[in-house]
This record gives sequence, C-alpha cells and structure tokens, in this order.
Amino acid sequence: MADYKKLINKIEKNEALVGVLGLGYVGLPLAVLFARKGVHVLGFEKSEKKTEMVNSAQNYIGDVEDHELAQVIESGFLTATTDFSRIAECQAIIICVPTPLDKFKKPDMSYIERACQEIGRVMKPGTFISLESTTYPTTTEEFMLPILEKESGLKHGDDFWVCYSPERVDPGNREFKTENTPKVVGGLGDEAQEIAMALYSRAIAQLHAVSNPRIAEMVKILENTYRLVNISLINEMALLSGKMGINIWEVIEAANTKPYGFQAFYPGPGIGGHCIPLDPFYLEYIAKNFNFDLTMIHTAGHIDNLMPHRMTIKINTALNRHKKAINGSTVLFLGVAYKPNISDERESPALKIMDEVAKKGGLVQYHDPFVPEVHTDEGNRYESMPLSDEILKEADCVVVTTNHSGFDIPEIIERANLVVDLRNAVPTASDKVYKL
Amino acid sequence: MADYKKLINKIEKNEALVGVLGLGYVGLPLAVLFARKGVHVLGFEKSEKKTEMVNSAQNYIGDVEDHELAQVIESGFLTATTDFSRIAECQAIIICVPTPLDKFKKPDMSYIERACQEIGRVMKPGTFISLESTTYPTTTEEFMLPILEKESGLKHGDDFWVCYSPERVDPGNREFKTENTPKVVGGLGDEAQEIAMALYSRAIAQLHAVSNPRIAEMVKILENTYRLVNISLINEMALLSGKMGINIWEVIEAANTKPYGFQAFYPGPGIGGHCIPLDPFYLEYIAKNFNFDLTMIHTAGHIDNLMPHRMTIKINTALNRHKKAINGSTVLFLGVAYKPNISDERESPALKIMDEVAKKGGLVQYHDPFVPEVHTDEGNRYESMPLSDEILKEADCVVVTTNHSGFDIPEIIERANLVVDLRNAVPTASDKVYKL
Repeated sequence: MADYKKLINKIEKNEALVGVLGLGYVGLPLAVLFARKGVHVLGFEKSEKKTEMVNSAQNYIGDVEDHELAQVIESGFLTATTDFSRIAECQAIIICVPTPLDKFKKPDMSYIERACQEIGRVMKPGTFISLESTTYPTTTEEFMLPILEKESGLKHGDDFWVCYSPERVDPGNREFKTENTPKVVGGLGDEAQEIAMALYSRAIAQLHAVSNPRIAEMVKILENTYRLVNISLINEMALLSGKMGINIWEVIEAANTKPYGFQAFYPGPGIGGHCIPLDPFYLEYIAKNFNFDLTMIHTAGHIDNLMPHRMTIKINTALNRHKKAINGSTVLFLGVAYKPNISDERESPALKIMDEVAKKGGLVQYHDPFVPEVHTDEGNRYESMPLSDEILKEADCVVVTTNHSGFDIPEIIERANLVVDLRNAVPTASDKVYKL
Repeated sequence: MADYKKLINKIEKNEALVGVLGLGYVGLPLAVLFARKGVHVLGFEKSEKKTEMVNSAQNYIGDVEDHELAQVIESGFLTATTDFSRIAECQAIIICVPTPLDKFKKPDMSYIERACQEIGRVMKPGTFISLESTTYPTTTEEFMLPILEKESGLKHGDDFWVCYSPERVDPGNREFKTENTPKVVGGLGDEAQEIAMALYSRAIAQLHAVSNPRIAEMVKILENTYRLVNISLINEMALLSGKMGINIWEVIEAANTKPYGFQAFYPGPGIGGHCIPLDPFYLEYIAKNFNFDLTMIHTAGHIDNLMPHRMTIKINTALNRHKKAINGSTVLFLGVAYKPNISDERESPALKIMDEVAKKGGLVQYHDPFVPEVHTDEGNRYESMPLSDEILKEADCVVVTTNHSGFDIPEIIERANLVVDLRNAVPTASDKVYKL
C-alpha cells in the first residue's frame, strides 16, 4: 500500500513531478502556472509540432503570456514531450485532453480512454491522477477508474488516487485566468481529496472542495448548461421580437437595470466554441442511461440547431428587399471566430451559415483578422480576404457574424451596399442595415 | 389640444393630483412613496375594506412601513376612495391592477379593460396615464389606447398621453423597494415620455427610458421569463440528480464559485407567486398571434406543471421506505407561502401538492406562521395547525415546502417520524430525511 501522506509531503516540498496530459488551451496555461509556482512539470502532447514549440518557448495559446512561457522553459520547470512512457516519472498527473462529441452528438471518450490506458500501463504505486476534461457525471468512477485499475493492476485507494476537477478556462477573459478562478475539486475518497487540495493549492488561489467526483462533474455541466439554455432562450426571444418589431437589444439593456435576479444574455447567430454547444449534451447522453429526458437541454439544442438556418433566412430577407436572391449574390461575412477578439472558430455558427449560403448558390467570402483560413463541415475551404474598399463595395450583402472590436463599423456601413447585423454592431436598423 | 408642458410644470410643482388605481402590493407602496415625496395621491380601490383600512392607516401590505402609511394619511397626501368617478380630478393616473391568467392560461385582461373604461369615461383633456400591470407587448398601444380614445372621445398625443412602466416589486425584498429599484419607462411618443419621466422622477431614484411601450412591456416579461426558465431548468436538473445519487444543492453551491457567467437558481417543489408562473404565458399568448412558438417557455411550463405531481411521488417514495402508503397517512406540510417569510400563498406549489396528497387519500395538515388559512384549487380549505410535539409525532410524514426562517429544523427532525425536505432545509439526507 502506498502512503498518501508521503505524496502530499513531496508535493508540498515541490519535489513531486507533475505530468500534464494535453498542452491545449487548458493544459498549457495550467502547466505554465504550476511551473511558475516552482512545481516541476512534464507536459505530454501528441503533436510533435506543439511539443517543439513549447520547448522552444514559442507560444500558441492566447491565454498564455509569452514571457511566462519563456521563463518556465528557460528555468527548466516546464518541459514538453511526446514520449508518454515518461508518465512513469510523474507522481501526479493531470488529464487535459479534449472530449468532443461525434457527428451524432454522442460523447467521444476516446481521448480520455487512451490517456487512461497510457497512464495505467506505466504508473507506479503512489500516483495521483486528476481529470479536468469536461465529461458526464460518473466518468471518473465508472469510466476512468476501471481502465486505470485494469491497465496497472493497481487498486484505487491503496495504490493510487483519482480526482475530478473541472477546468474553467474562458478563452480571452483578461480578468479571470487559471490562477484566480476558484477551482472545484472532487477527489474520490478523503485521501484523494487531501492530495488534490495539496496539489492544486500550489498554483490556484481558491479551491472549493466537493464530496465526490460526480458532483464536480455535474458542476461543470450545470455551468455551461445554464449558458446554453439562456443563450437559446434569448435567441428565441430575439426571433419573436423581430416579428413584433421590438428591438431586443434595447429590451435586454433595460432588463439589465434590474439590480437583482437577472443576468443579461445576448442573442447572436448561434452558439459556438468548445464548451457550450457540447457539454450539456454529455449530460443528455448519460441521462438516457437513467431513463430521464432533459427537456430543457433538448429544447435549447433544438433552437440552436435551427439558428444558422434562421440567420440564412434573415440574409435572404435582407437581400430580397434589394430585389436580390442569395443565388448569385456575393455575401461577405465579417468575423468567423465564435466570439470577439479570439482566433478560435470551433463550432462557430458563422461557418454553418456560410455553408448554407454557399449551398443556396451564394458566393461566400469572409474577413477575420484573427482567422486566416477556415474549413467548414461541408468541406468548403475559405481564406480571409483583406477588408478593402472594393471587396466591401462588390459584396451584395455584408453579414456581421462576430463583433471583433477592431471592426470600423461606421466605415463598413458607409461603403457596403447592405449590412445584416447579427451582433448589435449597429445601434439602429435602416434601409441599409438589417438587424437581428 | 392640451399642452403637455403645462402638465409637466404642474407635476414639477407638486400641484398635480396623481391617481393610483388598485391599492395592492404594487399600488399601495407606490402611492405611499409618492405621498411621502409631497405628491398628492388619490388611491382608487374596489374593496371597501381595503379603502377603509388605508384611510385609517391600517397597513395590509408587507412592503409598506406602518409608520410611513400613518404619516401620509395624517398629512393628507394620500386618500383612498372607492368612487372611481373621482378619476376626473386627477391629472396623472397610474394603473396597478392585477393581470391574472384564467384556468386555460389565457390572459385575463378584464381588470385593465375596466380600469381603462373608467378612466376614459371621466378623464379630462391633459391627462397622463401610465400602466404598470404586467402584460403582453402591444397592450398599451393596441388594447389600452383604443379603449381610452373610444370612451373619452379624446385623441392620444393631442388630448392625453400614455406610457407603460412595469412594476418591479419583489415582495419581502429588504434591499430593493419601489424607491431604489431602477424603473423602466416607455412613453408612447416624446411628449408622453417627457411627462412620464417628470412624474416618476418625483419618487423614484433611477429611471431608464426606452423607445416605446412595447419595449417596456417586453422587458418585464423577459425578466420573469428568465426566472421561470432557470428555475425550471434547475428543477429538472434536481430530478435527474436525484436519480443519479448527486446532491444538487452541493452542485449549485460549487457552481456558484464561478466568478462570472453564472447565476445560481435553486430547485424546489415548483414555482409560485403572482409573476413567474404567469408573465411568460402572457408572451406565449401574444406570440401565437405572430405565428411563433416559444418553445423554451413551453418546455419550462411543462416541467413546472409536473412538479407538484413529482413532489407527491417523492412523498410516496419516502413513505414507502417506511412501508406506508399515502392513502391513510397523515402528511404535515411546513410552509405554504410561495417563498420564505411572506404571507402570500398565491400559486404556491404547496397547495397543489396538498391537493394531490388529499386526492390519494392522505390526511393533509399544514403549519405556516404567516398563512392562517388556505383555499386550494380543488376546493379544499385548511387551517394552519400549531407546530406542537403531538402534531409532529402523529404525522407519518413532514414535508418542508417553504423554508421560513423561523422553523427550528433540527427540533423538527428530532420529533418527526419522517421528513421530506424539498427546500434544502437539512444539509444531508438520512434514514429519516428524504431530500429533493
């Protein structure tokens, strides 16, 4: 039997080597943060390119400061590797791999599965493993643990310990980063919890302990389900308001003067990113296993699925006012990232609208200073165009899909023939500006 | 043509007489507030009993301070009357009548209709009318205005002016009352807006002007739709969590440590009160007129409709563990008000559960220090029982339906045979305590 107090002691003396699996938008900021706090970190990454970039202090994650990465690489506290057998060297391992949904909105657990197999194969007694990837409740106990035990021949509680602690990374958030965002920690059993608290408290200012991993798993999904449901609600309200001649943006601004019991959400062309369109459906998946229908998530998903189509209809309506059809018109999209001022276009609704406009015979173009190139679900590939006078003038319709703060909206309206504003970039509608 | 500037001038000099129609939980606090600020107020109320109470400074509204009512009655700034012909004396009229739903969830507009008829019949040129009752967007322009014009023979904009300014009363809220809650003001046209701002600024610290009445109408419904949808979401999450062995209360507490983008809602036996179960369905009603389905509100309403039944099943499950059926068991409900520490049992889910338990053959009792007597939808009448040792011991099951802060929960658990806690009154479940 391994002694969990020995591990805690090592962690507290910064003598434990911490392995971070996956150096993406969650893993790299976390690895850099631990390293900055004097913890020795080994970062594991499948991509050779990313591994080389990290080791040569070339930053590829917006939420990581270049100089901080440089500092921890130079000091040797952080090293990246593609050699997963070196997991054997680590006393604590944090899993930050992706958990996508497949095309049928079924959770793709293969990344977690492989991570657990790789850990299980080589880990020594006395190892602590924490999962940060968003997933459905019961994953840590009923999916991760059996793989680890099977592959290692070790026993949880005696030889190793697991924990679930959801990442709360909000890309582009300048106020709340990994270090100052309170972290929910759900160890499996008291010993696991004690190790988890000792480990995370090296780097993170405020920890919130919960009774078990499945509570922590549910926390993350509740947070993002709340967002999905409220965005879907306001999108539906926006569509109705459009029909009723009500400016939904003015409604929200006014409702937001209520000093309690209200949180403003804003409509848009749909939901995007790697969390909100995905996480709730993890819960919907496991709920079926409990013979339970999550009707709110289902309805929200239904609204969301229809948004790109409804936005295409808005483009159609706007062009129709100018006696034009989508078929044969040039439609220029401004912004394809899923939110302003970041370079991430994953699950971005803009891409889905572009696909639908292209399918209807529209000539699709886009401009996004953060995203040089996109590949859509329908297999289309587009490159960002420079926002020249000519391009603006030649477009039959300019669609504001992402409100990057760099866009000079008055200038764009001045030069464009027709603007469909899906982001409240323009305060009031006019002959030239069609607003969601 | 009447001069709106003359009216503003009168208002600013406190020379205008303000009529408040309906002296309920919205109208009485507003009337008292105006009167305290030196505005002469005439309160109109159908109920002779309430009118006499106001005029003899007997307070019946929790959010009104006894001494403030006494002061404005004594000083003569507020007088109540049942004589609606005296509306003719008022230069500004504020409508604070109820807008219930009928049994088929159709808006019951009869109170607004009658108020408008009574105003229209007697009002003089130069009158300003503001509607505060929650209602569907378009009401002010398309329902209220035609009645006023027809009854009076006067013309809006020339002879009188209307406005919609939603009440935001949160009964029992000690921090935000009428005076310090920002007020949304939507006059119909610039002159109406100017009068409205002049009038409300006599009494209310912060006003938020919007472009037209229908925006203001939508604001109030958005605020309460947000609450309905989020309460329904968390109720559904609570039911799933119950099946999965997850303590939803601990999940919410942990999610609430997220410092941005989350607002905590708590599950319970259902939604209650005079706003959240009603307002969204006003919008659903008018949406049909625009061929639009509000799927989120519909789904939320569906969850809410089922909650009393599901709570009855929880009582059934808890009794079953003690090898008892509802039929023949004594079930004691603690708290029937729709929220803690108030005396309002309108739309309270407790009453619906009581009806269902009674229907299944349970002997229903209740204790609520704020509510001496209730009449349920099914025509049952109950009186609050004293919370004696005997009553607690004789009950087969005690159900916490409202967490009034005066309840001594440890004492209740000690004495009761079985507790079904629908309000997180008890932190952890046990053999004796069954938790939502």
